[in-house]
Amino acid sequence: MKKIVVMGGGTGNFTVLRGLKKHAVDLSAIVSMADDGGSTGILRDELGVLPPGDVRQCLVALSDSSRLMRSLMNYRFENGGLGGHSLGNLILSALEKVTGSFERAVEEMGRILYIKGKVIPVTTHQVRLKMILKDRKLLEGEKEIYLSHEIDKGYSKIYLEPFPEPNPHALSEITNADLVVIGPGGLHTSIIPNLLVDGVSKALRESQAKKIFICNLMNRRGQTTGYKVSDYLKEIVHYLGRDVFDYILVNNQTPDPALIERYAEEGELVENDIDDPRTISANLLGELTEKRKGDIMRRSLIRHNSTQVTKEIMNIVDHL
Amino acid sequence: MKKIVVMGGGTGNFTVLRGLKKHAVDLSAIVSMADDGGSTGILRDELGVLPPGDVRQCLVALSDSSRLMRSLMNYRFENGGLGGHSLGNLILSALEKVTGSFERAVEEMGRILYIKGKVIPVTTHQVRLKMILKDRKLLEGEKEIYLSHEIDKGYSKIYLEPFPEPNPHALSEITNADLVVIGPGGLHTSIIPNLLVDGVSKALRESQAKKIFICNLMNRRGQTTGYKVSDYLKEIVHYLGRDVFDYILVNNQTPDPALIERYAEEGELVENDIDDPRTISANLLGELTEKRKGDIMRRSLIRHNSTQVTKEIMNIVDHL
Repeated sequence: MKKIVVMGGGTGNFTVLRGLKKHAVDLSAIVSMADDGGSTGILRDELGVLPPGDVRQCLVALSDSSRLMRSLMNYRFENGGLGGHSLGNLILSALEKVTGSFERAVEEMGRILYIKGKVIPVTTHQVRLKMILKDRKLLEGEKEIYLSHEIDKGYSKIYLEPFPEPNPHALSEITNADLVVIGPGGLHTSIIPNLLVDGVSKALRESQAKKIFICNLMNRRGQTTGYKVSDYLKEIVHYLGRDVFDYILVNNQTPDPALIERYAEEGELVENDIDDPRTISANLLGELTEKRKGDIMRRSLIRHNSTQVTKEIMNIVDHL
Repeated sequence: MKKIVVMGGGTGNFTVLRGLKKHAVDLSAIVSMADDGGSTGILRDELGVLPPGDVRQCLVALSDSSRLMRSLMNYRFENGGLGGHSLGNLILSALEKVTGSFERAVEEMGRILYIKGKVIPVTTHQVRLKMILKDRKLLEGEKEIYLSHEIDKGYSKIYLEPFPEPNPHALSEITNADLVVIGPGGLHTSIIPNLLVDGVSKALRESQAKKIFICNLMNRRGQTTGYKVSDYLKEIVHYLGRDVFDYILVNNQTPDPALIERYAEEGELVENDIDDPRTISANLLGELTEKRKGDIMRRSLIRHNSTQVTKEIMNIVDHL
C-alpha cells in the first residue's frame, strides 16, 4: 500500500484527507500547531494545552465512525461559558490533561473515531506564529495573521516562537512516504507554519517521495491579493529551500460568475500563469451544488471538490 | 440471565453497579433526573439540556472500556469558562443537542463506553426537585435541598415540578425485573426523586420482582440526623405506597472509631433498630484501606464496599 503524507492544517487538509481515506492507501496527516483562534485559542490560553482545532478536523476527516460521531466532534456549544467551544476540541484537551501527552491524546482520539491513517502534530511544543510586516508591525498569533489585511503589502519575516523542535514521527513519516501532498490551504497560516519547524523542509528535500503541490482556488484579500500560481509556488519553495515538487495540481474550471462576484469581497480566483511540464491542469471544482453540513465546508462555496482532487492524486499514486 | 434493576442516582448507584457488572446479570440503572448542582446545574441552565451528571456516573460504573476512557469521562476542567465541567457531562449534553433526544444521547454514550447493561432516565422531562419545610420555607432544586441543614426538623412536602410523565422504558424495566435494588443513596436527593415520578411507585408495587432496600451507612447532618434503619424504610415506603421490600440489607460492622470521629461533622452512623425476618445483616464495609481515584468515591471514607454489597445481592440472585 502506498504511503501518502498530507501536510497542512485547516480546511485544505480536510478536503484531501476525506477523499483519500476512501482509497487503499496508507495515510498520514501532518498538522501545523500554530492555530490559536476561537475555541482553540481559548483552550491554549486557559488550559495551557496544545492547539486541538486543526488536529480535530483531520481526525474527523479520517474517521470511519458514524455520521453522528463526526457531527458530535464538530458540535459547537452555543451558550454560556462553553459558547464557541467544539466538543472535539474539549475531548482532545481533556485527553491531553489525562494522559499528559498531546500525541497520546491524538492517538486515543483516533481510536475513539476509528480513523483510517494517522494524525501527527508537526511539533509537540507550544509555539506561536508571528509575522513582521514590511512596516515593522508585528503580528502575533495565527489568528491575527489570518485576519490581517496588510500582508500583501509584504512581510519581512514569518517565524514560530520559540523555534520548535520537530516531532520525530512527523519527520519519519516524510522520509518514508511515497507521496507528499502540500496544499491547498492558507499560505501563511496553514502551509508555511509546517515548514518553519526545524528539520521539516530538510526532510522534504531529502525524502525520496514524490511531492505534489495543490494550489488554492482563491486568493485571500489582504493576504495573497493578486497571487498567481507561480507566486504561491515561489513563496513555498523559499521555505522549502529548493523546488521539490514533482507535480503541480491546478484547477482549470471557472466557477459561475455570480459566485465569483459574491466572493469578490473575500478575494479573487488564482490565475494559472505557469507553463511547466509538472502541471496537472484539471477540473477540481466538480459539482458546485454539492452541499455539506460540516462547519468547515460552509466557509466558502468556491472550493476544491474532494472527489475530483482525490481522483487526480490517485492517478499519480497508481503510477508510482 | 436474571434481570436486575438498580434505582437511585449519585454515589449509591455507582457502588452497586460497579460491583454487579462483573457478574452474569442483565443490568439496568434507572436514574433520577433531579440533579441540578455543579457542572450539571450550569449545563441545565445555560444549554437547557437534561441533567447529565448522575447518568454519567452510572455509565462510567457500567463501562467495560479502558481505565483511560473512564478517567476521561470523569475528568473535570480546572480553569476558565470550562472550570468545574466534567467532560462526560459535556459529551452527554452535546449528544443530546446533536441527536435531539436525551435518551438517544445516553444510548450512544453507552455504546462509546461499551457499557454492560442499560442506563435509563426515570423521566425525560425537565423537572426540578422542590421541598417545602415545616416552617413553609421552600427549597428549590436538588442542590439547595442537598445543602440544607434544616430538613431533619421536618418537611411537609417534596415534589417534582412540573409533575413529570415517566419514561415508559423505566416502567417496563421495573415490570420485567427479577430483582429491584433501591439504595444506598441520598434519601431526599437520590432515592425519593425516582418515586415522585408518575407511575414509578405503582410499577414497583405491581412488579413481580423481588425488591431489596440497601440502607445507608451514615446519616447526613441536617438531613437525616438521628435516622435509624426503620426511619429510612418508613419514609421510602410512604412514597412507595406500600412496603414492597423482600430484603433489607444492613451493615453490621463498625468502622474505626477514629474514622467515625473524623466524620462527626458530616453525620453519624445509621443504627439498625429493626428486628425483621427480611433483614440481611452483613459486613458491607470490607477493606477500609481501599482507595479509589474516581471523584465519586473520594467524598467519604465510610462507604459501602462494592464487592461486599455485590456478594450479598448475588446471594439473593442465585436463589431467585
